Order: sequence, then structure tokens, then C-alpha cells
Amino acid sequence: MRIVDIIDKKKRGKELSKEEINYFISSLTDGTMPDYQTSAWLMAVWFRGMSEDETANLTEAMINSGDVIHFGELSKRIVDKHSTGGVGDKVTITLIPLLAAAGIPIAKLSGKGLGHTGGTIDKLESIPGFSTDLSIEKMHKQVEEIGVAIGQQTGNLTPADGKLYALRDVTATIDAVPLIASSVVSKKIASGADNIILDVKYGSGAFMKTPEEAVNLAELMVKIGHKLNKSITAVVTSMEEPLGRAVGNSVEIIESLEFLKGNIVTGDIAELTYDFGTIALTQTGKFIDEATARSYLLEIIHSGKAIEKFRELIKAQGGDTEIIDDYSKMPQAKYKVEIKSQNSGYVSKIDAYKVAYGCKLLGAGREKKSDSIDYSVGVFLNKKTGEKVEVGDVLYTIYSNDEQKTADCQKYCDEAYEFTTVQPAEQKQIYKIIR
Amino acid sequence: MRIVDIIDKKKRGKELSKEEINYFISSLTDGTMPDYQTSAWLMAVWFRGMSEDETANLTEAMINSGDVIHFGELSKRIVDKHSTGGVGDKVTITLIPLLAAAGIPIAKLSGKGLGHTGGTIDKLESIPGFSTDLSIEKMHKQVEEIGVAIGQQTGNLTPADGKLYALRDVTATIDAVPLIASSVVSKKIASGADNIILDVKYGSGAFMKTPEEAVNLAELMVKIGHKLNKSITAVVTSMEEPLGRAVGNSVEIIESLEFLKGNIVTGDIAELTYDFGTIALTQTGKFIDEATARSYLLEIIHSGKAIEKFRELIKAQGGDTEIIDDYSKMPQAKYKVEIKSQNSGYVSKIDAYKVAYGCKLLGAGREKKSDSIDYSVGVFLNKKTGEKVEVGDVLYTIYSNDEQKTADCQKYCDEAYEFTTVQPAEQKQIYKIIR
Repeated sequence: MRIVDIIDKKKRGKELSKEEINYFISSLTDGTMPDYQTSAWLMAVWFRGMSEDETANLTEAMINSGDVIHFGELSKRIVDKHSTGGVGDKVTITLIPLLAAAGIPIAKLSGKGLGHTGGTIDKLESIPGFSTDLSIEKMHKQVEEIGVAIGQQTGNLTPADGKLYALRDVTATIDAVPLIASSVVSKKIASGADNIILDVKYGSGAFMKTPEEAVNLAELMVKIGHKLNKSITAVVTSMEEPLGRAVGNSVEIIESLEFLKGNIVTGDIAELTYDFGTIALTQTGKFIDEATARSYLLEIIHSGKAIEKFRELIKAQGGDTEIIDDYSKMPQAKYKVEIKSQNSGYVSKIDAYKVAYGCKLLGAGREKKSDSIDYSVGVFLNKKTGEKVEVGDVLYTIYSNDEQKTADCQKYCDEAYEFTTVQPAEQKQIYKIIR
Repeated sequence: MRIVDIIDKKKRGKELSKEEINYFISSLTDGTMPDYQTSAWLMAVWFRGMSEDETANLTEAMINSGDVIHFGELSKRIVDKHSTGGVGDKVTITLIPLLAAAGIPIAKLSGKGLGHTGGTIDKLESIPGFSTDLSIEKMHKQVEEIGVAIGQQTGNLTPADGKLYALRDVTATIDAVPLIASSVVSKKIASGADNIILDVKYGSGAFMKTPEEAVNLAELMVKIGHKLNKSITAVVTSMEEPLGRAVGNSVEIIESLEFLKGNIVTGDIAELTYDFGTIALTQTGKFIDEATARSYLLEIIHSGKAIEKFRELIKAQGGDTEIIDDYSKMPQAKYKVEIKSQNSGYVSKIDAYKVAYGCKLLGAGREKKSDSIDYSVGVFLNKKTGEKVEVGDVLYTIYSNDEQKTADCQKYCDEAYEFTTVQPAEQKQIYKIIR
């Protein structure tokens, strides 16, 4: 078998066999295939796509390229929820304590985010002392004790995916649906969960720009999951505007705490957290009826069990639990600048990408893995789409450590807002659920 | 400017600017672009193609990536004839002394061939003592003195093309029309000729399988040549069956000598040599009328001027001129095996690829630049398409140094021949001339 023949076959649009894909991925993993052949193949895949069987075989080969984590008997019950990434997306943080408090074990492994704001790991690490640097043994033990643990992907998990991703990034082949699907699903399966819930975003702040593209990706991921004998659900959701009001790291933790305390009962964050929670409770068989599952989750929040579970999690991972009742213990920005509206009417749109870009300029994200993140900066959207605004009302608030960066951020956030004279119809967050 | 953006632009089917192409090729030449980006771009070009302007800009950038040879005032008159390569194709060897004797200066630079049989350089070097290792100064002087010189491409000619070709070979991107066109034309222009004649082959023994594909390539090369202010003609010719009767190295030199002595007056080699010669004489303005040009060439052959010019060339480049009158001084194979026909009727087809593959098995070609060639081996087709055959007639002759290899070669040559009961119509060699 020769790599050049595998490239040629894909280039001509033919389906690669399982043996060919295994040979390709093992040559990638052991370093015998030069990068220039990998990248030619990636570009051929961008143009030709892959069949479901090819994508499932690629996913399996990537899983087997490194370590596969097992949490023993727990694996079968453990839920892992993953989002393809969005602006202000803190639903993983709100959902995890809620599910753990509801008796669903969570062992979540995340990578450090590359993007305009941090990823889940970064947001959690904005809590003073909170560490995600856990061994698998420590995670396993913690899940058995308190039902939840969140660690960084370390060690030798899906090394083939790591190599492919690094090359995709520099060869303009990130946006190939089978490569995205196999990358996400291989990491989730190698991380040890048998129950996977995926949030596939579309819109200005997401990778997929249209709901159709997102559905296409979501369907493929669910099919691969099923082929690899996992319980999997993909939920296609809107990322046209930021989720919730807080965008950043520390500010998103505070908003999550407010939700877990029961202080946020409506809006996108509440809607999505309850929707995903209901899916998790029914997918794992804890409840059959969705309405009962949803009532149960509301009860978990309002009884204080969710925030207490979050307190246990923070404590177990070395974080300062005092932040729960005293937000001033979270990283504080030097400047808090309230931006007033020059328009009146209703907010008709807030462009997620522009707000994210403004936050990036403040220092809330990273471009390279070695970049450091300023946890304290971010934006709080005092007004969201559908809300009434008068001239002079506070539209949004910038948390910043630099006056020039504040001005740069404001420029993008001002552009993000659009207004109308009639109240726009409320938008549903979920476009489609694929099981 | 970022390479990843250039890859992405080509991937999306947009036209690259001259600046982008220059940046890409200079990054390739100076080694700052990693191979994995080059190969992703190559694959994107395979899928998207390139416009005429893009291909001309690529060609120009490759020319300027290294040295460009000038033969002073001579350059304007020098003719370079290049073939995309075919089985038994010795028309460069028959044409060069003929044109030089007709007063057309020739300074031809060739690469060592990779293929089932040797290239022009290899065939010439099968003449004992003949060396193509000439400096540009020596070539220039020799062309001024005797009107002809044939050297190996050495030094720093189109290094960008060299790098691209090496990557194309291992990434399944050889067969991309704009990449083939820019590779051929850049090398010809950098080699110093202002008048270029290209033989673009199609058929079983050629790279382009159909005449339409060959015309497509030929038209693109002519357009690029014109954009770069060169006088250029491309001739699309058939390579369905081997050219002439000899396939190998030494055996092809002997057939060429027979033509130059005036002993071969009909058939494909004579037809193509006179056709290309006529194009050269009219393209350079030496004759306006084609019929007059053709008569002049016949006169050059029959007066003995052509074979005498070849004698001068052999002598000037250190070869043994005695081979002209004594073929036994050429490399001799140990075995000469005459294969008799088991069929009667007419030869209807001889598959060029199969004969070439048979010769490769004998050792007539090379796969890697470091492989050595056995000059003495080859096949002589005693019967060609259209000729009458009785059972027991000698169909073809194998020149070999190994009995097992003889048997292997025979297997392919036997498969190459097809027979019919009615005499097939004669096929024209030239499909189309593009100026």
C-alpha cells in the first residue's frame, strides 16, 4: 500500500477502504508519512468529502491512535456534553453541576480553547485556585465521590487528530465537514463517555454559518457515533447573537453562578440549559417523560442543590468557594465602562462575531496555545435582542484593563448592535435535535 | 500576505493575483514555505485549475526563480523542440541535425528522463564517449561553430519547478494541466530559446490519454508562450503506438542514423520529422511557403548534409563517430531474440504502453534519478500497424542481457499486438497544430 495511491484515490472521488484509512492514520501517527502527503490528502478530502463509512473508519482509527480512557462501570452512565463553540457559551458550566446534582455522573475532558474568548477550561480556571490539571485516576475517584470532574485533555489522547488539526489550521482545510465530525467524535469517545450530547452551533459567531450546514455536520456526527456504538444526540442551535449577557471568562462564571442560584429563569441560557439537561436525563434513561425530567431540573435549581454541587466541584478542584457569595473575589478589571445607547426602540440584532472580536481585543482569548488570557476582561450586554431601549440607557458594559483597548472594543460592539422600531419576534435557540 | 490565505483563495476557486503567485513561488524557492502548504495548494490547483493569466504568471515566477540562459544575439534565432514524451520518440534526435544543417541554430537543454525508456539525453549518451555535460559557455561556442549543441539541464534553472515537480510526484498532483504547462514552458524559456516547438502527445503511451486533453494542454502552453512574448507552436500528435520501429536507447540511435542517411523515407518518423522541420523553417521566417521548406529538408537529407551535421555534433561532444558507419560499435546486447508471429493478417494495433513496459523490464529506463540504464537493450518492431503478417514471420525482436527478462518482455509485447483480416486505414500522426 502506498500513500500516494491513497491520495490519488481520494482525489478521484473514490471511497477509501478501512484498511487504507487505518494505514494512512497509522503512518500519520508513527511519523512515517511526510506532512506534505497528509496535507495533499486533507485538501482532496475538502473537495471530495467522505462517506459515512469512511468518516466512521477515520474516527475509529483516530481513537485507536492513542490512549482510550475507561472509567470502568461508570463509563456507561457518564454523560459528556460538547459544544462546537460559540460566543458567551457557558451552557457547559451551567449544565454540569445541574446534571451532577440530578445524579448523572460527569467526567469531562476539554482542550484549552483557541478563539476570541477562552474555552470552558479557561473560564473555570478564572476561579482563583481552580485547577483542571487532573490525572485520570484523580478524575475517576472524584466522579465516584461527588459525581463530577472536569479535566484538561492531556497525555496521548487521539494524537492523530492533534496532528491532522495542526496541519488543517495552516492549509486552509479546517472547514471540511468529515474532518470536523471525526475530530470532535474521536476526542469524545477517547475521553471515555458512552453518552454524548453535542451542541452544534450555526450563525455569525459559529463555524457553520447556516442552519443547513450545521444540520449536515450534526447528522454526520450522530451517524458516526451510532456506527461506533455510542449513545449520541446532536442539537443544532443558533449562534447569531451571544448566549446570555456575559462574554469573557470571569464575567461568564458570574452569570453561570446567577443561573445556578436560580436568579436567571428566562432567556437563552436558561432555555438551553434546561433543554440539554432534559435530553441528558431522557437519553440516559433516568426519565422517560421529558416534562417530568424538566420539572425535576427546575426543582434541583430552586432547592439549591445545583449551586451546592458547583461548590463541591470548585472545592474538589482547589478553587476558592467564597467567589460563590462574593463576586469581588473573582478577577477584577481595572475599568468598568458603561456604554449608553444613542438609539431608541428595540434591539433587533447583536452580531456575535463582532462582540467576540471586541472581547479578543480586550485580551479575553488566545490565538496560540502559548498566549495568556486576561480572565478579568469582557463585555456584559445590558440589553439583548427584543429588549426596549431609550437613548441614554446603558446598552452594554466593557470590563477592561487598558483605555485604548476599551475604545477598540467599543468600536466593534457598537457595530454589533442593530435597532428597530417594532419589537422583533422571539427566536428559539434550538433549530433541530438529531438522535 | 499569508500563504494559508493564498491556499484558501485557490481552494474557493478564486483567481490569484500576480503578487500572490510571486509571493508563493518566492516562498517556495527560498524555503520559507513548508512543503505541507505547497502540497495543499497543489491539490487545490488540481481541483480548481488556473486561468491563463494565473498560469502565465506562475510560469514567469518559475522562470525568475533561478538562472535564465541567454545565448546573446543567437537566442532570437535558436529553436528548441520539446516532446511531452512518447514510446520510441526519437524525433528530437532526427530533427536536430536536420535543422542545424538547414541553418537553424539549435541549443537544446534536456533533463535526464524518468520513464520506461531513456530520454533524448540518455539515447545520445548511448553513443560511446558522447557527453552532454556541457557548460553554457561551451554550448554557446559550439552553437556558434557548428550550429548545434545538446546539454543537460544543470545548475540553477527553474528551481521552483524542480521543487514543485518533486512534490507533485508524491502527492498525486502530476496530472494538473496548468502545472504541466507552466513546468514545460518555464523550462524552455529559461533555457534560452525564443522559438519553441512543442510536441504534445496523446494515447496509450502518453500522459494525456485523449486528443482533446492534449489539445487543451497544447492551447494553454501556446497562450502562455505568447503572453511571455515567445514564438511558440504546439503540435498535438498520436502516441497510440510506438514511433518508428526501435524502442530503447542504442537501437533508437541506429534507427535515427538510418533516417538521417536517407534510408527511411516513409512512415511515422519521416512524417513527423519533416512536419516539425517545416514548422521550424517557417516559424523562424527562413521560408514562407511550407512546400518549399519541405523540399529543402528532403534535399538536406539526400545530399548527405544531415548525417554529416550529426557527425559534427557527435565529434564536438566527444562521441565515437565510427558508430555512424559501423553499428556494432554501439552498445550490444547479449541476446537478440526474434519473435515469430502466430497470427496471419494485418497488424491492427500495437499498444505503446505495453511495449514500453516490456522495455522497462529489460532495463531500458529508470524510475529514480540514481538508477542506471542499460543502453543496449530494447525492442525492434519488425511489423508495424497496417503491415501484412504470415504465421512464422518475425513480428518483433528483443535485445536483452537476461533470459528471464526476455521472457517477461515478450509477455507484454505479445499482448501489445492486435491483428485483423482487412488492412486498416493509415493513421495521420498529427492531430492538430496550434500556433
